[in-house]
Amino acid sequence: VTVKPVDPQWLEAAWQRQVSLTKPPGSLGFLEELGCRLAAIQQTLRPTLGKAAVVVCAADHGVSAQGVSAYPASVTPHMVHNFLAGGAAINQIAAVAGAEVYVLDVGVNTAPNATGSHIAKVRLGTADISQGPAMSKAEAQQAIQAGMQVAKRAISEGATVLAAGDMGIGNTTSAAALTAALLGMSAEAVTGRGTGISDAAYTQKLAVVNKALGHCTSSDPLDLLAQLGGLEIAACVGVFVAGAQAGLPVVTDGFPVTAAALVACRLQPSVRDYLFAGHRSVEPGHTKQLAALALRPVLELDLRLGEGTGAALAIPVLRCAAALLSMATFEEAGMV
Amino acid sequence: VTVKPVDPQWLEAAWQRQVSLTKPPGSLGFLEELGCRLAAIQQTLRPTLGKAAVVVCAADHGVSAQGVSAYPASVTPHMVHNFLAGGAAINQIAAVAGAEVYVLDVGVNTAPNATGSHIAKVRLGTADISQGPAMSKAEAQQAIQAGMQVAKRAISEGATVLAAGDMGIGNTTSAAALTAALLGMSAEAVTGRGTGISDAAYTQKLAVVNKALGHCTSSDPLDLLAQLGGLEIAACVGVFVAGAQAGLPVVTDGFPVTAAALVACRLQPSVRDYLFAGHRSVEPGHTKQLAALALRPVLELDLRLGEGTGAALAIPVLRCAAALLSMATFEEAGMV
Repeated sequence: VTVKPVDPQWLEAAWQRQVSLTKPPGSLGFLEELGCRLAAIQQTLRPTLGKAAVVVCAADHGVSAQGVSAYPASVTPHMVHNFLAGGAAINQIAAVAGAEVYVLDVGVNTAPNATGSHIAKVRLGTADISQGPAMSKAEAQQAIQAGMQVAKRAISEGATVLAAGDMGIGNTTSAAALTAALLGMSAEAVTGRGTGISDAAYTQKLAVVNKALGHCTSSDPLDLLAQLGGLEIAACVGVFVAGAQAGLPVVTDGFPVTAAALVACRLQPSVRDYLFAGHRSVEPGHTKQLAALALRPVLELDLRLGEGTGAALAIPVLRCAAALLSMATFEEAGMV
Repeated sequence: VTVKPVDPQWLEAAWQRQVSLTKPPGSLGFLEELGCRLAAIQQTLRPTLGKAAVVVCAADHGVSAQGVSAYPASVTPHMVHNFLAGGAAINQIAAVAGAEVYVLDVGVNTAPNATGSHIAKVRLGTADISQGPAMSKAEAQQAIQAGMQVAKRAISEGATVLAAGDMGIGNTTSAAALTAALLGMSAEAVTGRGTGISDAAYTQKLAVVNKALGHCTSSDPLDLLAQLGGLEIAACVGVFVAGAQAGLPVVTDGFPVTAAALVACRLQPSVRDYLFAGHRSVEPGHTKQLAALALRPVLELDLRLGEGTGAALAIPVLRCAAALLSMATFEEAGMV
């Protein structure tokens, strides 16, 4: 299955409607572009965003043993339980944003006790990327499929817009390696402090990213995903591909999720037509990713949490951008 | 009636709760500060924002005869009718944001046909500020009272957060003069292109602002408001004062509305404790106003429409910021 490009004629028609509405041309700024893109995706001049879904993909990272995170790996299953209990940040934001939270455990290291509202453990966390590949290519494909499955489930349950979120202690290390490899950048250019690490841990994190990149030879996006991880990033790739295949807008969150968006666009370039950047985080590599995707973020609030929080937070703004195309035209308002 | 300062002990208690929640400290960025301020305003550690109200204040400006706007003054009543018919940008955004729109006609030049869901015409538009005072001090006070009345009505009908919006062809000229006078800045520093004027019209607008400032001698905020206008800006002052007096968060919109926020804070400095900046517009003077108020805007989407659009758009984000304080603590999640 391939992703169909968005029809540029719908985009043009939406812009024509945009300039006929009762406001000075351009006065709604970035909302105008967002609205026109949503119109073209939905193939209507009066787009509306209904129910949303945030698919939070969770998995563990072998590399977390290298001291690259401020938190131990045991936090991953705790936070998954927190998502299920409704106590996490994403639960509060999703409730306000009209979004249902789907929690996909694609590799949390808690055998035999499974976690997640959707369980498709490909393996119990990735292998340590500083030592070798995170997983096999078949496992990466399996994790992508798991993300696609949950996305399809959300769509069958009424979602009209999908956001992806991530949970996995150590995952900004994988995301940094993956981003460096995909964009041909140095570890230094894309590695940040994640949830907040010390100078010493940051030096260690950089060394780990460089080591992982040293093992990497392929330029194939699926190879890179398998070699650098993680399982939840792969699942997010699946969410974006399935959302775009279904013709729905898909919203990126922070650094690990946007790494997944980069992979999705390499696998299926037309995914880009459906992508919206929810926010820009404080991770320096996130800005590089957004530039590579040519996406302007909806929000810039200095978030660095993940879980899909920045994506879900942007959904009401996207909903407004869509609704604005239902304004009266100057003609309808008797003003011409 | 005076505005009571927000209790710093509540702010401190909210920050203590913020750092106990299941997220890395600081990882929710600016949302954390917003949430704590909302908690302190509501005097609870679990704030929630319910129903919102956007009070759109409309009036005409004598100075519009000087060619300072891209649109003729006749657009003001047309747009008020559009607000009432639900066809304007603010109607679409308010519906998504869970906000009711109150339209206050405090001086639209359409006698004897009144417009607005709330009508309190102080006069049929201001006098031309390039020639003399916009209105008398008594009229300015009357317009403030009109804004306060509608704000109180909205509060009695269940509003838990108030936003102010503006409609008035020519009002960025008044707002520029008022901002320059209040902040002790030059016309050049604070005058922009409003809804989008040509270079020639911009030169004319600057000359008009300078002329208006030349007539101005007082430094009293109420005198300046009366001399430089406008009636809808005065009504917005009333919305902010009444909202803060009632202990509710109040949200600024663009350049004219933020000029009103400046006046409100000069009249009652504690209004600042209740103010939230909805967005930063492209008007250069808006950035100066926000800096003077020490307010970081929630959104930066290059809007330049007014009507309360940027304020209403920020309400879902504020609602999320409040809701986030209801996250589980590490202790509640069994993570300590």
